[in-house]
Amino acid sequence: MISKMYKDMLNARSVIREFAEYAGKRGAEIGYENVFDFSLGNPSVPAPKEFTEAMIRLLQNEPASKLHGYSPTLGNPQFKKAVAESLNKRFGMEYKAEHIFPTSGAAGALAHAARCVSGEGDEIITFAPFFPEYIPYINHMGSKLLVVPANTEDFQINFEKFEEVLSEKTSAILINTPNNPSGISYSAETLSRLASILKAKQEEYGHEIFILSDEPYREIVFDGKEAPYVSKFYDNTLSCYSFSKSLSLPGERIGYVAVNPTCKDAALMSLLCGQVSRGTGHNCPASLIQMAVAEVIDMTSDMAVYEKNMNLIYDKLVELGFTVVRPGGTFYIFPKALEEDASAFCKKALKYDLILVPGDSFGCPGFFRMAYCIDTEKVERALVALDKFVKTEYR
Amino acid sequence: MISKMYKDMLNARSVIREFAEYAGKRGAEIGYENVFDFSLGNPSVPAPKEFTEAMIRLLQNEPASKLHGYSPTLGNPQFKKAVAESLNKRFGMEYKAEHIFPTSGAAGALAHAARCVSGEGDEIITFAPFFPEYIPYINHMGSKLLVVPANTEDFQINFEKFEEVLSEKTSAILINTPNNPSGISYSAETLSRLASILKAKQEEYGHEIFILSDEPYREIVFDGKEAPYVSKFYDNTLSCYSFSKSLSLPGERIGYVAVNPTCKDAALMSLLCGQVSRGTGHNCPASLIQMAVAEVIDMTSDMAVYEKNMNLIYDKLVELGFTVVRPGGTFYIFPKALEEDASAFCKKALKYDLILVPGDSFGCPGFFRMAYCIDTEKVERALVALDKFVKTEYR
Repeated sequence: MISKMYKDMLNARSVIREFAEYAGKRGAEIGYENVFDFSLGNPSVPAPKEFTEAMIRLLQNEPASKLHGYSPTLGNPQFKKAVAESLNKRFGMEYKAEHIFPTSGAAGALAHAARCVSGEGDEIITFAPFFPEYIPYINHMGSKLLVVPANTEDFQINFEKFEEVLSEKTSAILINTPNNPSGISYSAETLSRLASILKAKQEEYGHEIFILSDEPYREIVFDGKEAPYVSKFYDNTLSCYSFSKSLSLPGERIGYVAVNPTCKDAALMSLLCGQVSRGTGHNCPASLIQMAVAEVIDMTSDMAVYEKNMNLIYDKLVELGFTVVRPGGTFYIFPKALEEDASAFCKKALKYDLILVPGDSFGCPGFFRMAYCIDTEKVERALVALDKFVKTEYR
Repeated sequence: MISKMYKDMLNARSVIREFAEYAGKRGAEIGYENVFDFSLGNPSVPAPKEFTEAMIRLLQNEPASKLHGYSPTLGNPQFKKAVAESLNKRFGMEYKAEHIFPTSGAAGALAHAARCVSGEGDEIITFAPFFPEYIPYINHMGSKLLVVPANTEDFQINFEKFEEVLSEKTSAILINTPNNPSGISYSAETLSRLASILKAKQEEYGHEIFILSDEPYREIVFDGKEAPYVSKFYDNTLSCYSFSKSLSLPGERIGYVAVNPTCKDAALMSLLCGQVSRGTGHNCPASLIQMAVAEVIDMTSDMAVYEKNMNLIYDKLVELGFTVVRPGGTFYIFPKALEEDASAFCKKALKYDLILVPGDSFGCPGFFRMAYCIDTEKVERALVALDKFVKTEYR
């Protein structure tokens, strides 16, 4: 009775992971410092020292039973309050602590939020290019993920195709802005238009359509701008956040669902999340981590390196003649490959020890992703290799 | 499209929680020190100081990016190795690191293990009295939980009824020893008989039947004895463990699945757990907590207080004429109520500020649970109240 579904998943290996594993193997041969590994989105900057100090202070001063006891079912009250106040201040929202449900990162947040508003037989729509893990996230909860093809002009939403995919079965729209892999933030115009379509469709279908807004890159934005806050544009929004990138804490598995106080059944939503958790394994974040993050809620790691890297890479890509949209944030860039088959392109790049990931698994064939959360010094050496690769293979 | 299933669950409130909430309210009125709250299984002893020291040492000496970076998909290698070696030494097993899959407590472990070996339409059998959270654990993964009535003589397995419930649909048996709520460990004889029935049925049905062994209380055993290690009796065993009780770390959500190296597809099982995790929200334990627990793997909190409390309570119950099986471990005891309706009995006890939980939701009507993970001084005062309650209401 060993699960066939999970066995089959094992055989369908992740392309990103395959390229990352190749990078590891190649690193063992020639030294990892010589492999230009743009495969994985692991933050390269450390957590702020204030987080470490808060952790040590708590461990030294608070009783162990307070630090490590069960969190309340709906999460640590101080953490929830700190998150609500921080979001209210920054985005002019009116969250109360009860609208914040702590989760094990954005993946945990999506696992909870999606189950609250969608079930067996319902459809959730996302937009290419999209994070490929959305497929198991949604399929395992019994809903069906539908993908709207990319608008490759500027990676905003392809609204024409979107309206073809919307139907009475649509329970939710899953968006990711700033976006992995494109690096693009949805503009206020895009979000307004999305909201107005959804409002009309809610009316037409006679049921809610929620936005599940996956925003782990919300704090990594360039040119001194801020990404528009999705929940400001549409009441029925559940914001799914992670501190993995902004505080460089991916291993600590901490994030939250923020329930828009004006959404349908807003007061119920965190309670429903608490029920979801009983089936997924009581996977709330570690109690001590909740307490320490509450103390540094408005901080981020020093993420200037990502913008610096982006500018170096973008300028070089343009110089080499790539078609590429300039990222507004994240640590990804998503240029068009120099041949139709992006997989063939990325395989050729391996000869130059450049680890690029083809866009096919992001629902956008012909493009490739570079994750530039690496040292700038390595980016500079990588661009020499990229120059050589392009001039040797495509001139 | 807001989930009806989770809304319905909210209405079906937990009896344990209702009694616990009453205790909180009553505490606000008369002082919590005057409420004899036996409702919840929260460890009352602190984590060992060596755990706190390990945490501080790691935070002071290791780079943040190492401490807080993503754990590998299958967990921190040092943690896995430490667990395997500790189990091998104590129980004569032959686990390798690859057989250990870190999870967010025993709930997380069960969420993973059950999904590996059971699916839609399959049946999982458990034995009353049982932890009521097994119902959402199993129902949410699509299998059906069947409950074998209790053997109230000694709370070992009711084998006659068990064989009536076994069928070709049986994918797994979910056991919990030492047991919540009975406090009883299954004897070597019970486990041998269970194993021999399952071996015969595997043969007959032509498919595996796994034991999911939920063992968070494994280290809380009395009279200097050790609870028999389930996996020693049956190859197809997945042991689900939590450090919540043994290290008093329930809020940190850390545990593991230990895959018996001789089980069917043993080499695959951790890999399957990794796939399960993609659907439940990437809920591995916090990376820093994995590192620190690895350093104190063979320690426990000082749990002598639980045995002391058990002896005081057991002796008093016997003196007052209760029918009660003496616990071999845990911090629970499960006596027979003094009237047929245990709910009525527990409601009457509230008049004496005694918070007892009726056995109905544990699948064992007529009995009640006392969780004695509280200070001995409070137990002593509670027994005075119990004496008064019984002599006033039942003499």
